[in-house]
Amino acid sequence: MYRTHTCGELNLSKIGAQVTLAGWVQTIRKFGAITFVDLRDRYGITQLLFNEELTLQLEKNSIGREFVLQATGIVKERSNKNLKIATGEIEISITNYSILNKSITPPFTIQDDTDGGDELRMKYRYLDLRRNEIKKNLELRYAVNRAARNYLHQQGFMDIETPFLIKSTPEGARDFVVPSRMNPGEFYALPQSPQSFKQLLMVSGYDRYYQIVKCFRDEDLRADRQPEFTQIDCEMAFVEQEDILQTFEGLVKNIFKEVNQIDYKEKVERISWDDAMWNYGNDKPDTRFELKVQNLKVKGENLCTTLEEIKFDVFNSAETVLAICIPNASEYSRKQTDELIEWVKRPQIGMRGLAFIKKGKDGILKSSFDKFINETQLNSFANYCNAQQDDLILILAGAEEKTRKAISDLRMEMAERLGLRNKNEFKLLWVFDFPLFEYNEEGNSWVARHHPFTAPKPSDIEIMINNDPKISNASKYLDHPYAKIKANAYDMVLNGNEIGGGSIRIHQRELQEKMFAALGMDIEEQLHKFGFLLGAFEYGAPPHGGIAFGFDRLCAILGGSESIRDFIAFPKNNAGRDVMLDAPATIDEKQLHELQIKLGSKKV
Amino acid sequence: MYRTHTCGELNLSKIGAQVTLAGWVQTIRKFGAITFVDLRDRYGITQLLFNEELTLQLEKNSIGREFVLQATGIVKERSNKNLKIATGEIEISITNYSILNKSITPPFTIQDDTDGGDELRMKYRYLDLRRNEIKKNLELRYAVNRAARNYLHQQGFMDIETPFLIKSTPEGARDFVVPSRMNPGEFYALPQSPQSFKQLLMVSGYDRYYQIVKCFRDEDLRADRQPEFTQIDCEMAFVEQEDILQTFEGLVKNIFKEVNQIDYKEKVERISWDDAMWNYGNDKPDTRFELKVQNLKVKGENLCTTLEEIKFDVFNSAETVLAICIPNASEYSRKQTDELIEWVKRPQIGMRGLAFIKKGKDGILKSSFDKFINETQLNSFANYCNAQQDDLILILAGAEEKTRKAISDLRMEMAERLGLRNKNEFKLLWVFDFPLFEYNEEGNSWVARHHPFTAPKPSDIEIMINNDPKISNASKYLDHPYAKIKANAYDMVLNGNEIGGGSIRIHQRELQEKMFAALGMDIEEQLHKFGFLLGAFEYGAPPHGGIAFGFDRLCAILGGSESIRDFIAFPKNNAGRDVMLDAPATIDEKQLHELQIKLGSKKV
Repeated sequence: MYRTHTCGELNLSKIGAQVTLAGWVQTIRKFGAITFVDLRDRYGITQLLFNEELTLQLEKNSIGREFVLQATGIVKERSNKNLKIATGEIEISITNYSILNKSITPPFTIQDDTDGGDELRMKYRYLDLRRNEIKKNLELRYAVNRAARNYLHQQGFMDIETPFLIKSTPEGARDFVVPSRMNPGEFYALPQSPQSFKQLLMVSGYDRYYQIVKCFRDEDLRADRQPEFTQIDCEMAFVEQEDILQTFEGLVKNIFKEVNQIDYKEKVERISWDDAMWNYGNDKPDTRFELKVQNLKVKGENLCTTLEEIKFDVFNSAETVLAICIPNASEYSRKQTDELIEWVKRPQIGMRGLAFIKKGKDGILKSSFDKFINETQLNSFANYCNAQQDDLILILAGAEEKTRKAISDLRMEMAERLGLRNKNEFKLLWVFDFPLFEYNEEGNSWVARHHPFTAPKPSDIEIMINNDPKISNASKYLDHPYAKIKANAYDMVLNGNEIGGGSIRIHQRELQEKMFAALGMDIEEQLHKFGFLLGAFEYGAPPHGGIAFGFDRLCAILGGSESIRDFIAFPKNNAGRDVMLDAPATIDEKQLHELQIKLGSKKV
Repeated sequence: MYRTHTCGELNLSKIGAQVTLAGWVQTIRKFGAITFVDLRDRYGITQLLFNEELTLQLEKNSIGREFVLQATGIVKERSNKNLKIATGEIEISITNYSILNKSITPPFTIQDDTDGGDELRMKYRYLDLRRNEIKKNLELRYAVNRAARNYLHQQGFMDIETPFLIKSTPEGARDFVVPSRMNPGEFYALPQSPQSFKQLLMVSGYDRYYQIVKCFRDEDLRADRQPEFTQIDCEMAFVEQEDILQTFEGLVKNIFKEVNQIDYKEKVERISWDDAMWNYGNDKPDTRFELKVQNLKVKGENLCTTLEEIKFDVFNSAETVLAICIPNASEYSRKQTDELIEWVKRPQIGMRGLAFIKKGKDGILKSSFDKFINETQLNSFANYCNAQQDDLILILAGAEEKTRKAISDLRMEMAERLGLRNKNEFKLLWVFDFPLFEYNEEGNSWVARHHPFTAPKPSDIEIMINNDPKISNASKYLDHPYAKIKANAYDMVLNGNEIGGGSIRIHQRELQEKMFAALGMDIEEQLHKFGFLLGAFEYGAPPHGGIAFGFDRLCAILGGSESIRDFIAFPKNNAGRDVMLDAPATIDEKQLHELQIKLGSKKV
């Protein structure tokens, strides 16, 4: 061993001891004839004191930042103490040292506030990983991993590894595929999740399964998506929805406790998908704060009857009118409201404008559409919105889907401005009773909202079995019985982020076949893609269900960040490239030949 | 929850309790008007008693093996106890039940001695996984996983996930590659191991890393190899070989303790590669037993001087003559020795014959080559072999490499016959000081025996730096200084199986470049393939080293099996196929088009 101690553990109790440390040069400070070097390793920083003689040697060797040193000396009490760090009361009076390795000047500084840009830090990821901030993130990630495993183990779950080289059965997202050399013309696929395998394990009787496992999706990458990502993947047999909710509330609470030292005692709130959309315009609402949506007019129906009385084309011609009341904001200046109007007009939001009403501290109302509304009407309008004194009521009008999304975005934006999104506060929420199907206009067909293995609510099974999934009248798809079927599914939401999602699964062959048929698969395709699963359901498949947590995102949120990339040791950039490795890359002609594949022409 | 208890936990302490169980029908036995059903789940088997009325119902529903039942009843003491199982003193007197799912007749019986053949069990793997034997294996695998993680955590190791979509840098084994849709014509590769990443993590200062991780090798599959396999992958910084040996002896001992309840107190033996080859003919000797190889003549040199005196062409013309003494075997019959002769002549061994000497219980010697040897010579021959009374000395002669391998195989075979390979006895061994390079006749070049990142022994670094790796005289490659360089590498051997291997790594750019050059890579190729690693070595790379354990094999050996397949939930067959999924398989034209690749013509 090149050291007797780490750079994070020495303190006053070791005064006089001879120790050897090894680590990286963080800083070098010369004071007259002597030199102080801060030596860094994974555990901390310790100050080394080089005397006159050794200082001369140091200079001869011209050591610099990031050199790797091994240094032996005596632990001494420091005159100039730094009580912010654990080792700040001591220093090592060096008696001899050696340079274990040199370093050229790093392309950016290895410290909390680095001067390195994103691309540069990705290219030299091995240097970026030295920074304390990234190290803390990876330590947190490991702590989450431990906490999850410990809890699941205590609950009787077994970690069972499932294969990575599987069969391509693309539903929704694209598979990454792997050409098989031994079976020319054939391909493996990398799993988008171990879904089928965990269900098979339930059929096999392993009634509590988990895995912290890499999954792969070949999607066009949006910001903060990775082609490979990690899930905490779980499945249970002989359970109903309630059992799963309780088990996995327990998981997340245990992570809070072990990782963040937070005792999350409250009951986890639950909300139906319908209610979430109604009250927050969003199926993963951030419930750290209220700011609920006021539904004034929905899909052409005036709920606030005042709207029938006033002649304001913006509201009258809109399918939907929604509002939120912002507290302590009635004194917003013209500049401030103008800025909000610009904000909702941005292409990402895409609204035409924003109306508002101010309810002053004195209770007096003023609106941006005073021309179109009288005082009584304004009063009843504000009352419908449940406005309080000093509220600013923000109102959006437009097509249902767009307006609901916009009010949700506006709600988050206002919460951000009001400082209501405290990253050290954690609020969990279960959302359930999602629609089982979504309508796909392009093909006039149903698609599974979650995935094709999700069971309908028990009360909706009959509807599913007894109706033909075919949509005869595309324009009236909402009238089809399938549009009303709710899924026996649930998402766990943390601070406005979906951190996990799951469902009770179909475990009957007939129902699974009906589901596949509803999604447009004929029986031949069903057997080709999922014959093994349909077969397994014939040999005594138990009722079962499960959940998968997005591990990267969960870690990021627990670490108080919105970006998953800094919680992954070696992430890819937004184009799916590893810029450090320079991958993907071309491969040898020989490899292509062995795989018996040829390249198509490149797109120009 | 569909149950109040599992099928493995009820006993006399619960007499009179009302319970609900859920599980699979293992057996149905009718006794007159009543019926006994053994209900099975992951935790055990519980006997259910159906009274007359319920028996009639059961018959109407015609339940059978592997049906999934939920049954409620009262715990009763059994008159006919089965003390072999935990629940054997009670039974459940059923008051009502429901069939949760039906089962058609399984293609093989779900019991310890199944009637299912290999292929059938692979196809219906989800049924095979129900068998107790496979379940025990997966439970053991999980226990090994836990024990490894617990130990490594205590030792300060951090689990850090490394990427799966990396760059193809084939050395030795072939990479599986993954075409990139977003970068047409380019490919990712699946990692053969996280080697580069764990070294980069050391450069980044994470001085104790581990991962239990899937790795991929596109090799022509031999029996009991899998294209995807799992490693316990570890790396440490600021360590020397001794630190690694001690740390990972500790790991394996902790696994023995937690998984097999074995307190492995002995010091782990160590042997150099030279000594292993000399004494056992093998670099992963099974040291549960002695049966050491006697080196009579090696590479043309007579070590047993008696050989110079006798005129026996088999020995005289051979490059190498080796022997082993088999205890308590001097009374082997002609039939038995003939059988051994046939055994060494099999193509897998490929020897021309086998000579032997019997040293009787009375000390009298007899040989199969008495014509060529006198009594004094025979005596000194047997003495050289250190033969004891009642020994059978088996002697092989031929070319060095082949003969050494054959004597090693014969040693194992004899140990098997003598019952010396007790699968419940565990014997660890470190083998170290391997040659750094192997000679590749085809290209008249060096190849890395371990991998190109392995450091030479400190004392051999000078030899490596100061000599040109070029081999000018192919026939005398053994005289090249590189042939003598030893690697700073070590293998851990358990019962004759290599379960782990690792090395101290190169951490200096110059030495790494020299290594790559020795393997025939010019600087351009080095930079293309490993530029990131060479770069990283310039920014303060610490001395480091590590090890990787073959997790599948380790589990198999700890489970007393030679086959890894039964310790993997969803293994592939020897052709690399998943016969359950029927993967690999063809993919859609659309997928190929998106990836911009075309299929070559199939081989006929």
